[in-house]
Amino acid sequence: MARKRQLKLGAQLHGAGASWADWRHPQAYSDASVNFGFYKQQAIQAEAGKFDFLFVADSVFITERSSPHYLNRFEPLTILSALAAVTEKIGLVGTLTVSYSEPFTVARQFASLDHISHGRAGWNIVTSWLEGSASNYSKAEHLSHDVRYRLAGEHLEVVKGLWDSWEDDAFVRNKETGEFFDKSKLHTLNHKGEFFSVKGPLNISRSKQGQPVIFQAGTSDDGRNFAARHADIIYAGHESFEETQLYYADLKKRAALYGRDPNDVFVIPNIRPIIGRTEEEAERNYQAYANLVTIENALTALGRPFNDHDFTVYPLDEPFPDLGDLGDKSNQGSSNRIKRTAKENNLTLRQTALLFSTPRSGFIGTPLQVADSIRKWFEEGAADGFIVGTGTTAALKDFVELVVPILQERGLFRTEYDHDTLRGNLGLQVPVNRNSKQSVYK
Amino acid sequence: MARKRQLKLGAQLHGAGASWADWRHPQAYSDASVNFGFYKQQAIQAEAGKFDFLFVADSVFITERSSPHYLNRFEPLTILSALAAVTEKIGLVGTLTVSYSEPFTVARQFASLDHISHGRAGWNIVTSWLEGSASNYSKAEHLSHDVRYRLAGEHLEVVKGLWDSWEDDAFVRNKETGEFFDKSKLHTLNHKGEFFSVKGPLNISRSKQGQPVIFQAGTSDDGRNFAARHADIIYAGHESFEETQLYYADLKKRAALYGRDPNDVFVIPNIRPIIGRTEEEAERNYQAYANLVTIENALTALGRPFNDHDFTVYPLDEPFPDLGDLGDKSNQGSSNRIKRTAKENNLTLRQTALLFSTPRSGFIGTPLQVADSIRKWFEEGAADGFIVGTGTTAALKDFVELVVPILQERGLFRTEYDHDTLRGNLGLQVPVNRNSKQSVYK
Ligand SMILES: Cc1cc2nc3c(=O)[nH]c(=O)nc-3n(C[C@H](O)[C@H](O)[C@H](O)COP(=O)(O)O)c2cc1C
Ligand SMILES: Cc1cc2nc3c(=O)[nH]c(=O)nc-3n(C[C@H](O)[C@H](O)[C@H](O)COP(=O)(O)O)c2cc1C
Repeated sequence: MARKRQLKLGAQLHGAGASWADWRHPQAYSDASVNFGFYKQQAIQAEAGKFDFLFVADSVFITERSSPHYLNRFEPLTILSALAAVTEKIGLVGTLTVSYSEPFTVARQFASLDHISHGRAGWNIVTSWLEGSASNYSKAEHLSHDVRYRLAGEHLEVVKGLWDSWEDDAFVRNKETGEFFDKSKLHTLNHKGEFFSVKGPLNISRSKQGQPVIFQAGTSDDGRNFAARHADIIYAGHESFEETQLYYADLKKRAALYGRDPNDVFVIPNIRPIIGRTEEEAERNYQAYANLVTIENALTALGRPFNDHDFTVYPLDEPFPDLGDLGDKSNQGSSNRIKRTAKENNLTLRQTALLFSTPRSGFIGTPLQVADSIRKWFEEGAADGFIVGTGTTAALKDFVELVVPILQERGLFRTEYDHDTLRGNLGLQVPVNRNSKQSVYK
Repeated sequence: MARKRQLKLGAQLHGAGASWADWRHPQAYSDASVNFGFYKQQAIQAEAGKFDFLFVADSVFITERSSPHYLNRFEPLTILSALAAVTEKIGLVGTLTVSYSEPFTVARQFASLDHISHGRAGWNIVTSWLEGSASNYSKAEHLSHDVRYRLAGEHLEVVKGLWDSWEDDAFVRNKETGEFFDKSKLHTLNHKGEFFSVKGPLNISRSKQGQPVIFQAGTSDDGRNFAARHADIIYAGHESFEETQLYYADLKKRAALYGRDPNDVFVIPNIRPIIGRTEEEAERNYQAYANLVTIENALTALGRPFNDHDFTVYPLDEPFPDLGDLGDKSNQGSSNRIKRTAKENNLTLRQTALLFSTPRSGFIGTPLQVADSIRKWFEEGAADGFIVGTGTTAALKDFVELVVPILQERGLFRTEYDHDTLRGNLGLQVPVNRNSKQSVYK
């Protein structure tokens, strides 16, 4: 029986805004990134809106030129664990880099979050694009792009192997006989690979969703293959409708080539809806955000995907400079898109920087217009859902109160949670433990 | 003005018991170690008892011979973050090994917990005694005891340096001018040492207690020096009153030699009170725990501080075997104590194992007897307080409801929290940021 396809919605918790200058917005809490009350409020808001999950981004290297919302913020696993205690149904997805972490610790912390939340954890796998990250982790150099993805594959394999250390019915806990667990149901991984050697077993069992859900955002060829092969949810950079359609089709095709059912792999772009009661009000709201960004900030923001490149050395009102392969080693996806957009539209450096710092999108408008765009993308092969990033709690509230009801009326989105695990709500199966014949959770 | 000396109390959250067979106790939840409801209940109970802090132990290596309460349990930082959201005043202290962690990640996660809890975090530093730990972290071998302590010193130095990356008034957040932070108040660490090279700055600021409180348990000479030099709270293994007095005096003396005020360094043994309405009932309660342990379990437990040594190869009813220096490389403190106790009392292997698996102590008795012991240790130079470990929630409840009121009546323990940070409640100063003249929090 074919299940009805359901829109997926995630809420990205941004702290002090989703871009360079959001913290300056009159409705923004400028200390939001280290304000637990603010995170809690956003989490409760998103759960009231029946969102599938909360999403927390991350990075492990800052300089004084980094965007304000990166400078001083909660670490994902700790903030998500705290939010687990004040929510009940919504998923909790955290970003963690494979390039600067140990699989044993990663497996433990996500499994622990998964138990605390009774099966609501998700891991967004990143390889870290900022080359400076190495300098915070006693490493001589940042690994090259292709090696990072090879390492990512092995890291994930180890983590998944550790997660399956204990079969689901391993813990007998028979007070009478004194048998705490069935030894035949404990499995030692004994992994020895190119990057890691990890014996196991893990000192924590699986939760009732089996394993945390895997998220990944891949833009390069290597990245797309990784995502298509391993991710349950592919987090896509937001481009035009047509580009995203192409991306969507490409990722589904790659997933099928890896022997997966493309219907179990969800492509979810991030959007930043800006809503107004009228089209004009929405445009004014967009301008209010855009005008907060100074040209200095916009240039610094532009430098980020090019490994914090200094754009102030180029003339502002001449065509976007030729940068050769700069950016390919750090964030290929974003840096190439910027180069392409500038070239195709004959933009100056100033125009490119300002456009990049507050991107326009088809998600600025009245609630009905935004809901229409969502439906169009969902129904016409560009998206299985969206991760909604908003600059302020007020904007998230608008989305929940004005757009979600329209999506619900149209039967695109749930009005109640059907499950209390992230996998359950996403419609994903509990993965059978590799070491046992069948999961005991159905 | 001399502050009145106050008893410190911590509650160790044990999950499935504090020793080998507690999970079999009729009142125990045998799945407690991965049961968030149980942790939450214990945390609320301890906060109702006005405890200074909750304490979570840890280890990073198990085998099928490990004690049940180590096999399947929450990871400290995640569980403490969740508990931060359901408590308000009580401190949150987590164990984390320096031998298998990166200072940048450790600094971030504890700072994040510190912000989530508004200044209630503490870090119990361990070096990991189990040699197998290396095999879970792609390491060829476990570092030797002295190198581990040298590494611990450098690790902590880096973490503390990172914690001070931002001066307390660095974040200006002026929406009008667009100044988010004052660049002169951001400090890059640029650490290059024997074990770590970490640039910084950290991407999170200090909380209102300045830095998380440092805990450590040192028994060897190196360990005692480390504790005396760096720890705010020294967690002591529980021995006899006389031995603990010697330990207490030794640690205070060492602290003074490092130029510290011994009154700002607290020595806190762990105890496992077992309470009954009468002395006989208390003894029956003790026996109920002791009888749950089989001799097989007791032998395995005994092996743990000797790097999981197999004691089944020796005759049970002959004198405790001569083990040479076995145990010195893993847990010197415990393994030497066991050897000494067996020798001094002419114990057989069986007697040693059973005694070790359910230690007797002066904290078994009526509420009045237990309170008297606590006062004696506190007033006669053996302890500044205690970490109370109990096998079941019911036992913690007994302690909170029956013993704490006696301590309060006698003016030894608070009846209300005076502060909402861990440092505040412990009576410790907010450490001035190394990069600034004076802390803005007083
Ligand atoms: C929507 C979106 C969100 C992302 N969030 C993060 C993040 O939080 N942390 C991070 O290090 N990288 C993040 N990335 C970067 C990706 O992990 C990846 O490096 C990027 O998409 C470039 O892909 P490529 O490496 O395949 O070229 C994000 C990417 C996208 C598209
Ligand atoms: C009361 C107490 C609790 C301890 N808890 C832990 C723990 O949770 N994890 C751990 O790896 N070591 C723990 N230890 C071990 C200490 O970190 C240390 O290795 C031990 O005291 C031996 O000291 P030494 O290394 O100076 O010989 C504990 C020690 C004591 C006395």
